[in-house]
Amino acid sequence: MSDSTQAKVPIAVLISGRGSNMVSLVEAVKAGSLAADVRVVLSNKPTAAGLEWAAERGVPTAILSHKDFASREEFDTALANELEGRGVRYVALAGFMRVLTPAFLGRFSGRVINIHPALLPSFPGMNVQQKAIDYGVRHSGCTVHFVDEGVDTGAIIAQAVVPILDDDTADSLAARILEQEHRIYPLALDAVLSGRVRMEGRRVLGTGIE
Amino acid sequence: MSDSTQAKVPIAVLISGRGSNMVSLVEAVKAGSLAADVRVVLSNKPTAAGLEWAAERGVPTAILSHKDFASREEFDTALANELEGRGVRYVALAGFMRVLTPAFLGRFSGRVINIHPALLPSFPGMNVQQKAIDYGVRHSGCTVHFVDEGVDTGAIIAQAVVPILDDDTADSLAARILEQEHRIYPLALDAVLSGRVRMEGRRVLGTGIE
Repeated sequence: MSDSTQAKVPIAVLISGRGSNMVSLVEAVKAGSLAADVRVVLSNKPTAAGLEWAAERGVPTAILSHKDFASREEFDTALANELEGRGVRYVALAGFMRVLTPAFLGRFSGRVINIHPALLPSFPGMNVQQKAIDYGVRHSGCTVHFVDEGVDTGAIIAQAVVPILDDDTADSLAARILEQEHRIYPLALDAVLSGRVRMEGRRVLGTGIE
Repeated sequence: MSDSTQAKVPIAVLISGRGSNMVSLVEAVKAGSLAADVRVVLSNKPTAAGLEWAAERGVPTAILSHKDFASREEFDTALANELEGRGVRYVALAGFMRVLTPAFLGRFSGRVINIHPALLPSFPGMNVQQKAIDYGVRHSGCTVHFVDEGVDTGAIIAQAVVPILDDDTADSLAARILEQEHRIYPLALDAVLSGRVRMEGRRVLGTGIE
């Protein structure tokens, strides 16, 4: 939990759809439990429902369509320019469906955070709820992690576990995991922004998150 | 929990050392919660401490040293002969430090079970507590699974989760996981032996184990 006298860290939240994790982060900021100043909610898709949700709550929004750029690198350079221009220091991905290249990550090194709906390193990539069910694991969950240049390979900040039930579908499992995503993402981001965490190799210690 | 009128399935438990999971299985049999008849506790190492523990409790023991055989296949054939000669139907591995080849697995197909001290498919192989700590995962645990020809790749019967703490060592984590191993291995084996489980692809359903 953040001290209210603490400086708020300027962040961006990147979405591609409804951005339910963006909602949980913005609500945590408004509740005073996440010491962040959300400078922008940015979508690469003009129709993302989360844009309207944010705008209605007075959060600045922006659209940067990847279709307007000839390459990933050009899009990523424009994205970094846009966020730097707004004074953004940390970037939280919330269902942002673009792979980020070094053109972006090099300018926000160690300052991009994502949440993934599986217990990494199990089940990186896409459609992971179905993959977890098909593999036959008895638990899955979610992972908040720093973004590096691999696919879901960055250092882990927090994880939460949920059971997989015999009659689960990908949708029922996704809903159970999402509840935990909404719980731990604000906690994990606050631990990073407030400077409470320390690195030991690739371990992230001191978060205090169960 | 097994019905006491149920036929007891003849099993072997294979060890290479103290066999703490063998102890938990034998104690569950004696307590009536695992419907098995332990026909033999067999070690590939003559000095395994678990042999004495079992013998003191009236459980038949045997030694089959891998050093007496020129190849893995010859050892595995002798092992299968030994167990079949004792009427063994299912085989539970409990710290048995030998890779089993098709020469053995082909004769006990779908009837060899192991426990692994990690949440598979994360961290297969050896020294997995240290690997989990070094990777920075926030939870680990143990997995009871059918043995196939891969390394820790077989269908999962049960898993239990434990937290990883900031100050954990491989030893402290191993001890926390071992408590859960001793809890779920008898439950998982009883679910299989009693015929309560059903397969759906590689999912093992119906165990009722949390």
